[in-house]
Amino acid sequence: MSRNITVPSILPGFMELLPADQMLFDKMISTIKSTYEKYGFLPLDTPTIEKSEILLAKSGGDTEKQIYRFNKGDNDLSLRFDLTVPLARYVAQHYNDLVFPFRRYHIGKVFRGERPQKGRFREFYQCDIDIVGNDALSVINDAEILSVIYSTFKALGFEDFTIRINNRKILNGFFEELGIEDRAQVLRTIDKLGKIGRENTVRELQEMGLSDSAVDSVMQFIEIKGSAAEVIGGLKGMNAGSPLFLQGLEELMGVLEHISYFNIPEKNYAIDLTIARGLDYYTGTVYETILDNYPSIGSVCSGGRYDSLAQNYTERKLPGVGISIGLTRLFYQLREAGILEQSKRATPTVLLVIPMRDTMGPALDFATKIREAGIAAEVYFNEGKTGKKFAYADKLGIPYAVVIGEDEVRDGFFKLKDMSTGMQEAMDLDGVISKIKNRAF
Amino acid sequence: MSRNITVPSILPGFMELLPADQMLFDKMISTIKSTYEKYGFLPLDTPTIEKSEILLAKSGGDTEKQIYRFNKGDNDLSLRFDLTVPLARYVAQHYNDLVFPFRRYHIGKVFRGERPQKGRFREFYQCDIDIVGNDALSVINDAEILSVIYSTFKALGFEDFTIRINNRKILNGFFEELGIEDRAQVLRTIDKLGKIGRENTVRELQEMGLSDSAVDSVMQFIEIKGSAAEVIGGLKGMNAGSPLFLQGLEELMGVLEHISYFNIPEKNYAIDLTIARGLDYYTGTVYETILDNYPSIGSVCSGGRYDSLAQNYTERKLPGVGISIGLTRLFYQLREAGILEQSKRATPTVLLVIPMRDTMGPALDFATKIREAGIAAEVYFNEGKTGKKFAYADKLGIPYAVVIGEDEVRDGFFKLKDMSTGMQEAMDLDGVISKIKNRAF
Repeated sequence: MSRNITVPSILPGFMELLPADQMLFDKMISTIKSTYEKYGFLPLDTPTIEKSEILLAKSGGDTEKQIYRFNKGDNDLSLRFDLTVPLARYVAQHYNDLVFPFRRYHIGKVFRGERPQKGRFREFYQCDIDIVGNDALSVINDAEILSVIYSTFKALGFEDFTIRINNRKILNGFFEELGIEDRAQVLRTIDKLGKIGRENTVRELQEMGLSDSAVDSVMQFIEIKGSAAEVIGGLKGMNAGSPLFLQGLEELMGVLEHISYFNIPEKNYAIDLTIARGLDYYTGTVYETILDNYPSIGSVCSGGRYDSLAQNYTERKLPGVGISIGLTRLFYQLREAGILEQSKRATPTVLLVIPMRDTMGPALDFATKIREAGIAAEVYFNEGKTGKKFAYADKLGIPYAVVIGEDEVRDGFFKLKDMSTGMQEAMDLDGVISKIKNRAF
Repeated sequence: MSRNITVPSILPGFMELLPADQMLFDKMISTIKSTYEKYGFLPLDTPTIEKSEILLAKSGGDTEKQIYRFNKGDNDLSLRFDLTVPLARYVAQHYNDLVFPFRRYHIGKVFRGERPQKGRFREFYQCDIDIVGNDALSVINDAEILSVIYSTFKALGFEDFTIRINNRKILNGFFEELGIEDRAQVLRTIDKLGKIGRENTVRELQEMGLSDSAVDSVMQFIEIKGSAAEVIGGLKGMNAGSPLFLQGLEELMGVLEHISYFNIPEKNYAIDLTIARGLDYYTGTVYETILDNYPSIGSVCSGGRYDSLAQNYTERKLPGVGISIGLTRLFYQLREAGILEQSKRATPTVLLVIPMRDTMGPALDFATKIREAGIAAEVYFNEGKTGKKFAYADKLGIPYAVVIGEDEVRDGFFKLKDMSTGMQEAMDLDGVISKIKNRAF
């Protein structure tokens, strides 16, 4: 028979995992999900495809170039490029059916047709939380978001990470006082300080037309360092008079005041006056999260506060604060940096049930009972040598195996084999169940 | 301030849920996921966007018309329209890295630009399992798939459903013997028997050019009814000589022989010789699942066996058997039929912590400890009257609330309010934790 064979492949810039990595990836998703839920964020799911006029309501720049946009019939469609714009549309559209403050999480894929480069993906998971207020939203929410970031990365197994916070009003107020007009440009430059270094930052600021004294002032300002208390002291010591600056300072102090109650160790957060986040819509608190031993990965969880989340879809003022974890990229980076555990586990199966000749029936019956006890079990159906069957368990990293022979069926005693040690232990069905249930996988 | 407001809306044919329904939907997904995992199926995730040449390798008919296909740069892209074609591509592409039999589940969105109609969606979740063998795959797998369907619908809370099975070889062998050439056309007609009735089926068969005796024979054949044993008896009694027919009969008997060990009640499955499934690639066992009291919903879980899953991407013979639940449509239908519970629960939060003036700190501390005990807790941050705060708990269906006043902080005793009964009970922190942990949500 002659057939057309299409060589199987996927597009560049798309991630696809083999089973053992997929298990790890899914475990991360489920850890993030359960942490978000522990704070009472509710799950949300919105269409992957939306009207282009909705997704591009605030258009411009990279977004427009990167978006996957196409026509089907009469419809001008786009794939979502983040989860924030769909959230804004959702709260505006369903405003009357929602309870505020509206706390939602959303774990889903987004799409950006970026130029392919190492560690950048065109289709990737974002894991977002946002709290959206109706008209007003207390700064305690900003502190809680910090607590969610902390709990999430702890739950993911990290110890050494720093959540950097700042407040955009402080920066903006400060610039206002210095008479700097193009704040967005200065913010973008300051945002790059960590990447391009002090010297280049100074030169860029000078090239923008800032006076030498203004540049000095800016550099002095963004180099206020130390513990949270020291930075607050430094900011107060500047005796700035800008109302915006003072409001930002007050908000930041409000966040810090409440952080203490969330049980977050001091080593896991810091004020960093240099972070501004590239996105122009943040208006208050901003967050970045750095893995202390892998700063080159960049921020693994970022976000901030916006005065008016849904302003393109409603006249209502709906202030919000939220963060996003770009999980696909994070997973890739952790794997590249060798941080991720190398798991042998390539299946949820905890027990492989191996029938002998003529014991298929009892083996199926045994597995059914194991499953009814809540344990993931699989029966090896193919015929062949017992060694080959154990090899299957081994290749998939299945922790336990049991052979169901005629003796076992007759006596009701089974030799449970621990695949990691090779040790066997004889016990009855209940013994097998409690033995396995007492171990976590 | 004057702004451009875009009226928020989504495209027709797309589903978006409000929080309480989203919670229910997610619960169904997690029930399906954990059932699939209990049988040792591993999670898989493939790109939403693939090369058009891959997804359309076996093109034709409705698929090609319905697919979302577009260009980005030089690439001809398509959104996946099912999870089976990506699976076929995946096993062919990663053949050397996989362990066979390869057992995977995949819960994800697929896209079909169908004409919009009630209960049909253009973006919807499929929940698939498949077992893919290397060269051979025992018929015991077909029996196990039936067991997975049974366990899944039981876990979803259904009692009265029937998994209908058949074998395509029996039908094909029978047609072969009758000298019927265009089997696909006859299969499609038989497949519609339930919908169009006996009379129309007979007429359609006659219009195909079948002799009256052939039509009689076909009708007699597909009307063999009764218990599984009775149908098998009826099939044997036909004394058919076609090798294909006999092979199909043997496979069907093999499936039945093993079903008994999976603890599936007889009322939950039946042989139905009329089901053939529209898709032409099934070659052996086929499945449909009917909710007994809502037959008009149609099959809620379907699938079957294919000899060569990945034949468009590899020369290797990779037989497979699998099923799919179209969850978005199922959810919609259950909701329409009034079967789905009406849940008040619109948040994962189990305990709302309500601070009084000046007790925000202790309230945050209290909630942190509750969360550390594994309970989803939320602090109400907005100021206002206590009644308004309880109303928030009520609107979201939060089961418990506790007010943290100055007395409570001093004494360490808290009045836990059961929001469904309004009853309050005073206890210490540990008491609150164990009280809530002893209830399932």
